[in-house]
Amino acid sequence: MTEQTQYSAGAAYLHGEVVPIADARIPLLDTGFLRSDLTYDVVHVWKGCFFRLEEHLDRFERSVGRLRLKLPTDRDGLRQVLFDLVKRSGLRGAYVNMTLTRGVANAGQRDPRLFENRLYAYVVPFVWMVSPEDQDRGISLIVSSIQRIPTQSVDPTVKNFHWGDLVRGQYEAFDRAARTAVLVDANGNVTEGPGFNVFALVHGTLLTPEAGVLEGITRRTVLESAQQHDQPAQACAVPATVLMTAHEVFLTSTAGGVMPVISVDGRQIGDGRPGMVTRRLRELYWAAHDDASYATPVDYD
Amino acid sequence: MTEQTQYSAGAAYLHGEVVPIADARIPLLDTGFLRSDLTYDVVHVWKGCFFRLEEHLDRFERSVGRLRLKLPTDRDGLRQVLFDLVKRSGLRGAYVNMTLTRGVANAGQRDPRLFENRLYAYVVPFVWMVSPEDQDRGISLIVSSIQRIPTQSVDPTVKNFHWGDLVRGQYEAFDRAARTAVLVDANGNVTEGPGFNVFALVHGTLLTPEAGVLEGITRRTVLESAQQHDQPAQACAVPATVLMTAHEVFLTSTAGGVMPVISVDGRQIGDGRPGMVTRRLRELYWAAHDDASYATPVDYD
Repeated sequence: MTEQTQYSAGAAYLHGEVVPIADARIPLLDTGFLRSDLTYDVVHVWKGCFFRLEEHLDRFERSVGRLRLKLPTDRDGLRQVLFDLVKRSGLRGAYVNMTLTRGVANAGQRDPRLFENRLYAYVVPFVWMVSPEDQDRGISLIVSSIQRIPTQSVDPTVKNFHWGDLVRGQYEAFDRAARTAVLVDANGNVTEGPGFNVFALVHGTLLTPEAGVLEGITRRTVLESAQQHDQPAQACAVPATVLMTAHEVFLTSTAGGVMPVISVDGRQIGDGRPGMVTRRLRELYWAAHDDASYATPVDYD
Repeated sequence: MTEQTQYSAGAAYLHGEVVPIADARIPLLDTGFLRSDLTYDVVHVWKGCFFRLEEHLDRFERSVGRLRLKLPTDRDGLRQVLFDLVKRSGLRGAYVNMTLTRGVANAGQRDPRLFENRLYAYVVPFVWMVSPEDQDRGISLIVSSIQRIPTQSVDPTVKNFHWGDLVRGQYEAFDRAARTAVLVDANGNVTEGPGFNVFALVHGTLLTPEAGVLEGITRRTVLESAQQHDQPAQACAVPATVLMTAHEVFLTSTAGGVMPVISVDGRQIGDGRPGMVTRRLRELYWAAHDDASYATPVDYD
């Protein structure tokens, strides 16, 4: 089997070792598993180029510091790990995850400050949270009755796998025959859903929650596109009730881009098709991938 | 190497396979890791007997149902997995973890309702969160400024690894030169700390938080001991300020039993030594391990 075949389904970096994704295993005793004591980031490769890679690395390094973790490598070394994985896989469209865990508690040594932090990374074919066909049609959303874990407990800007609330929301969406769910905070303001930020177009202005959410790179790209094209946009508190009466609603994620929503809690948004502003921003998002200032090519040779 | 030697540091059951603890690995792509989408329980073995095993299994099965997970085995099969691991290890004092994860998202199949849930279990030598010597002296506690993840987001009675808030509290304790931390809820009431429940003796009555906490089996044992020995005890809201003025404070956990606290936020509790009621309850807790109705012997032959 050639290397390309072996890694074509994906490749993983495990604390120094590279393996095909099917063989990727981590220690059962890693506190990244046993305490979800970790941070991570996800960047994607599109048409053979990383998209806004340095910004993802900036965020990842910032999160690492916030959790008082320490990367075993510098920025160059980290970049090298990611490029190597993508090159091995040969994937031109890929989902690239990097995760740093607190590490393993060895017998007799339970002080987390002394653990050796562990770096994992993996590359798999690009993940569509919502398929392009379903994005064309638009999807259904509910406002979950579950509250998002508050910032006072876990900082959402430090990307984490505390998804218990988001998974509950996802199951609630299934129960109500919807595609996915957005969670609210204790004040009834919209936060985020499982892996995405939310936008609403209200009287010509694009609104997105300001606080209690991950500061998504796709969200940032949309806000910048809006600004460049004179579309008023604002990060602010967004009451859940605003979603119901919005003219357009969409979700943003690295795993899918700009995803139109055509119903919220069973109520139709606009005319029940993806709205004009949403469609335009979705086009601009993919067009941005050709912008040399955002795209870092992978050398596959 | 004999089997006993091979497994003497611990043994793990991994979705059907048994390996020495040092070889225990789980798939990187398990959503138990990538989403902390799982529940678990911990029971201990003392002097060759499981302690209150059926109650731990009751709680685990209840948690599994609450997350809409499904065990791949019935109660007998689960019990068999745990007994087999302890027997292989030969350990007479052991910490026994069982974990059920949502499982792995295979390419093309991202609906969590269709994942094959994965059962893991492991046995290691008994874990002392606080060593018996430190328990004799008593430890220092702080009331953390971090809020415990609220019940509205993640149900604390379904044992989970959403420890981001607890780890922040633990680091805050380190920064303030204390041993560990208890977190409060949005109303300033005490909840729990990293792996333990909290008790305070106030004017002769033992108080422990009623809501927003794991319903610990050690906590239950203490409440039952108190009742049997005419020590007034009550599960109720416990404002953090009450801890400061309590006559005695202690923590309870499967990983250590009844652990005396001698200072809270730097203020001495009582006379700076473990209090009389605390010491008595600690003795009763370990004495309960000889009660045949609580102890299930392991057949090591």
